[in-house]
Amino acid sequence: MDFKILHTSSLSKARCGQISTGHGSIETPVFMPVGTAGTVKGVHSSELKNDIDAKIILGNTYHLYLRPGTEIISKAGGLHKFNSWDRPILTDSGGFQVFSLANNRKLTDEGAIFKSHIDGSKHIFTPENVVDIQRKIGADIMMAFDECTPYPCDERYAKNSLQLTNKWLKRGWKHFSDTSPHYDHSQAFFPIVQGSVYKHLREESAKFVSDIGAEGNAIGGLSVGEPAEMMYDMIEVVNEILPYDKPRYLMGVGTPVNLLEGVDRGIDMFDCVMPTRNARNGMLFTEDGTINIKNKKWQDDFSPLDEKGETFVDKIYSKAYLRHLIISGELLGAQIASIHNLGFYIRLMKLVRENIRKGTFSTWKNQMIPKLSKRL
Amino acid sequence: MDFKILHTSSLSKARCGQISTGHGSIETPVFMPVGTAGTVKGVHSSELKNDIDAKIILGNTYHLYLRPGTEIISKAGGLHKFNSWDRPILTDSGGFQVFSLANNRKLTDEGAIFKSHIDGSKHIFTPENVVDIQRKIGADIMMAFDECTPYPCDERYAKNSLQLTNKWLKRGWKHFSDTSPHYDHSQAFFPIVQGSVYKHLREESAKFVSDIGAEGNAIGGLSVGEPAEMMYDMIEVVNEILPYDKPRYLMGVGTPVNLLEGVDRGIDMFDCVMPTRNARNGMLFTEDGTINIKNKKWQDDFSPLDEKGETFVDKIYSKAYLRHLIISGELLGAQIASIHNLGFYIRLMKLVRENIRKGTFSTWKNQMIPKLSKRL
Repeated sequence: MDFKILHTSSLSKARCGQISTGHGSIETPVFMPVGTAGTVKGVHSSELKNDIDAKIILGNTYHLYLRPGTEIISKAGGLHKFNSWDRPILTDSGGFQVFSLANNRKLTDEGAIFKSHIDGSKHIFTPENVVDIQRKIGADIMMAFDECTPYPCDERYAKNSLQLTNKWLKRGWKHFSDTSPHYDHSQAFFPIVQGSVYKHLREESAKFVSDIGAEGNAIGGLSVGEPAEMMYDMIEVVNEILPYDKPRYLMGVGTPVNLLEGVDRGIDMFDCVMPTRNARNGMLFTEDGTINIKNKKWQDDFSPLDEKGETFVDKIYSKAYLRHLIISGELLGAQIASIHNLGFYIRLMKLVRENIRKGTFSTWKNQMIPKLSKRL
Repeated sequence: MDFKILHTSSLSKARCGQISTGHGSIETPVFMPVGTAGTVKGVHSSELKNDIDAKIILGNTYHLYLRPGTEIISKAGGLHKFNSWDRPILTDSGGFQVFSLANNRKLTDEGAIFKSHIDGSKHIFTPENVVDIQRKIGADIMMAFDECTPYPCDERYAKNSLQLTNKWLKRGWKHFSDTSPHYDHSQAFFPIVQGSVYKHLREESAKFVSDIGAEGNAIGGLSVGEPAEMMYDMIEVVNEILPYDKPRYLMGVGTPVNLLEGVDRGIDMFDCVMPTRNARNGMLFTEDGTINIKNKKWQDDFSPLDEKGETFVDKIYSKAYLRHLIISGELLGAQIASIHNLGFYIRLMKLVRENIRKGTFSTWKNQMIPKLSKRL
């Protein structure tokens, strides 16, 4: 993997770059649609590529490990072959999902013992086997196994958790360095900064992570319920320390406004289930604000879904029709809204890059934030 | 509407024809995908047109009347505009759905009083207002309001029911003749033959229907639980009487084998939820038999979904991947299987027409039936 910074913003820390992988290059800042179980819910791989133009998608190690299982994915020749997606894939480490299991997991120094949400079977994730699983999945970018602290989280817990995450990171990095890709493309390994909302812990973690010397670095444990301002503060603290010349990935974030604020603070990569999950509930993101398509006001609005949208659904379907589908619980409603929202997120990041290149990012961002925050 | 017979089969009653409508022409025999609430579940209108190549779809008057309601559809300028489908649409009369409501409907001479399955609100369908609703929907082909008898059904009930259906047909036909299309395309009105599994009632009904002199005629009340042979017998009885030079539509039928047997007996049009409903449960129809994709045997079969299939899903997705999606309850699984199955039904009818044209229909049909009946 290779990363080049191509343009920077004079009034902010925003930057435009390019990540090169064995499955093609990615212009940053980039938004990565989430393909939990090897599929972005409701969207064909061809739509993702040709209509939405996503350059990289995310897969969840936890879900893929349980179903279809790493054996099947290995036999298929990796996830790219299995799900017919020939552009880059990033996989998380499973940490976030395992720690969401609450009563169904137990933490030890060795790793995390957990029960499958599907059949209750017992499993263990360790910093090492999570690398092995991601090797078998064949992700272009793999993530370290970490403990994602909840919010709120007391300082003592956050400190102990960070020590564990750091120990795991060392083991994961060693195992990554000792093993090789299973397929004919290279794989990068990103460590993750934790430390909850404590500045000194975030600093400690960012230094520890930086010292690893990985090809890219991630910030985890944010957007877990803390106020947005607190998240932005933590990003600033961390990005002061994380190497400038490596991509910075803010995990699990966020709203369109969060994305712009993240870019403003030097973030290069984002992922979030919001565009697809909210789509299934009838929430649409647009340049002029968010739409709750279930509202009665849209029932006879036969104008195109989004005049400014660039996917096929924006042009051929009306707001009234989508409202009917979502209200009726029709599959097609979820499909249309998902394509629209993902198309919007991808286009928003294209506008971000254009404005960074033109040197107008800060002005543009300040105009966009109030618009994006509106409810239509 | 216009119908021309282009080719006939010497060894059977199969025929190839062409129906011309205000939204283009349809080669028969034809299979019509069911778009219950104005959408074929899980399939974009562009996929239906460009990938599956459906020439006509069906909408359910009962569902559309309740949601989004005829007012919204009228405001949109008709269903074609509302759901972005510019090829022909046929709507049923709502009779079948209303009579499926069991305890929530009451039959009178006037019509059927029923309670909405959505909110329990009270409504009435009459032979006249069902024409009005279908005028507002703007279907190219509208259906008469009838009572669809269940199976089994005693002869006395079937006889009385047929009398009611006939009375309603006269009223519906009169109202159809007295009213005009709401949009700039013509609308045809098909009466429906009933009579359960009683030969003399079917004959009586077929004569009554034929005397109406409509542009096409339908056979209802079959495939409701009776043995297939009984259905085939009834088709034979009815098709002896229905005008030769008008399209014959067998409602709600059926399996691929049912379709070939229907064509063999002179049926021109079919509709059924089977390809989409069964798709959502992981059942795939192929030229070599049916596949239950949930079976473990497919878990590591990475061959394309259907080597003989012509839709994009047949080529880019593997059986193992579809199995994973269906087992995981992923939306995309339903989408892929629905496109495959509809593509298969449409292609099967294309093969039917080719073989009728070449004079090889009967031989081909006899080779196909055992293959189609297999479970792979």
